[in-house]
Amino acid sequence: MALKLYGAPMSTGTTRVMIALHEKDLDFELVPVDLFAGEQKEPPFLSKNPFGLIPALEDGDLTLFESRAITAYVAEKHNETGTDLIRHRDLKESALVKVWKEVESQQYDPAISPIVYQHVVAPIRGQSPDQAIIDANVEKLGKVLDIYEARLSESKYLSGDFYSLADLHHLPFTYYFMKTPYASLINERPHVKAWWEDISSRPAFKKVAEGMTFGDL
Amino acid sequence: MALKLYGAPMSTGTTRVMIALHEKDLDFELVPVDLFAGEQKEPPFLSKNPFGLIPALEDGDLTLFESRAITAYVAEKHNETGTDLIRHRDLKESALVKVWKEVESQQYDPAISPIVYQHVVAPIRGQSPDQAIIDANVEKLGKVLDIYEARLSESKYLSGDFYSLADLHHLPFTYYFMKTPYASLINERPHVKAWWEDISSRPAFKKVAEGMTFGDL
Repeated sequence: MALKLYGAPMSTGTTRVMIALHEKDLDFELVPVDLFAGEQKEPPFLSKNPFGLIPALEDGDLTLFESRAITAYVAEKHNETGTDLIRHRDLKESALVKVWKEVESQQYDPAISPIVYQHVVAPIRGQSPDQAIIDANVEKLGKVLDIYEARLSESKYLSGDFYSLADLHHLPFTYYFMKTPYASLINERPHVKAWWEDISSRPAFKKVAEGMTFGDL
Repeated sequence: MALKLYGAPMSTGTTRVMIALHEKDLDFELVPVDLFAGEQKEPPFLSKNPFGLIPALEDGDLTLFESRAITAYVAEKHNETGTDLIRHRDLKESALVKVWKEVESQQYDPAISPIVYQHVVAPIRGQSPDQAIIDANVEKLGKVLDIYEARLSESKYLSGDFYSLADLHHLPFTYYFMKTPYASLINERPHVKAWWEDISSRPAFKKVAEGMTFGDL
């Protein structure tokens, strides 16, 4: 039975999973969830994810949610297919994948997502962007990126000289962020810029980026 | 060489790792980091974690940070020792551990940690608790706990009828939270209350809870 991914092609969580599925050369069916109609908050979808958030993945009789859990599941189940995203053969490498996955989740995402939200999503919802929130998070993100710059001067990717889930998880939000006036935060740091150009030019991401149209972006 | 854990016995990140080490019956040395002196922001510690946050774990020549990455590493490396915290023998069970670990990280922690911060940490730093932040997060946490209540009426633990990292990761913040006036959020939901009483009475946690004294709590 083919994998079924419930989500939307512009959603950061859905695309995070789609990129991983493409890296693993896996076929899947994208089942659209109509966010503007609030379909994710209604009973049929709530039985897949009680939190009412996309995406959800169905693999046979198993239903999973939370994009980072789904990518980790897919990478582990199909560890011999496509790109090795978790470095399962090397305990040290796989440990560093875990560390930098958590850095994305705990340090990077909380800084970048409010900027993207305020700049991109708020206007679509008819709200004015809150510049104080943007400013505070630009400062936070800058500090995180200073550490990335130092790290990426030592190794090509965050966890070492290999592409992994730790890098991949950054793609969706950074893609939207690069279309805001704050893209210089990435571009003015040469190692971060080179890393971004590298990971965003991978075929698995380019396939997904085509569908990432969100408002005027 | 023994494991060295750099941290502090009242820190939620440090204790998250300590509980996992005890569940795995592993010996380790706790090397104290003086948070009040800002030792975590100084060069010797920054070489272990450039983000300047405790804890960090040294396992031979490998240095790791981010508490949830460390627990996952320890659980995977020592999967045949002590409690099986990741259900590595069963793909479906291990997938559900991943899902509910992410729920803790993405849904539970962002709601509970500001309440604990405002109620416990702010006064220690001479700041007044911000009641608006507390109120907003009490509402958020209540919604998360409604979903936990439904989930825990179906299975004894979050990922199924087995204790795992998904449950364990909740312990440090919930322990402090239960000493605030908002503990009723847990206590008024019978399945959540029973789950909390179960996981907080495990010997591995009780050993660690003894050291979790924080200001007047």
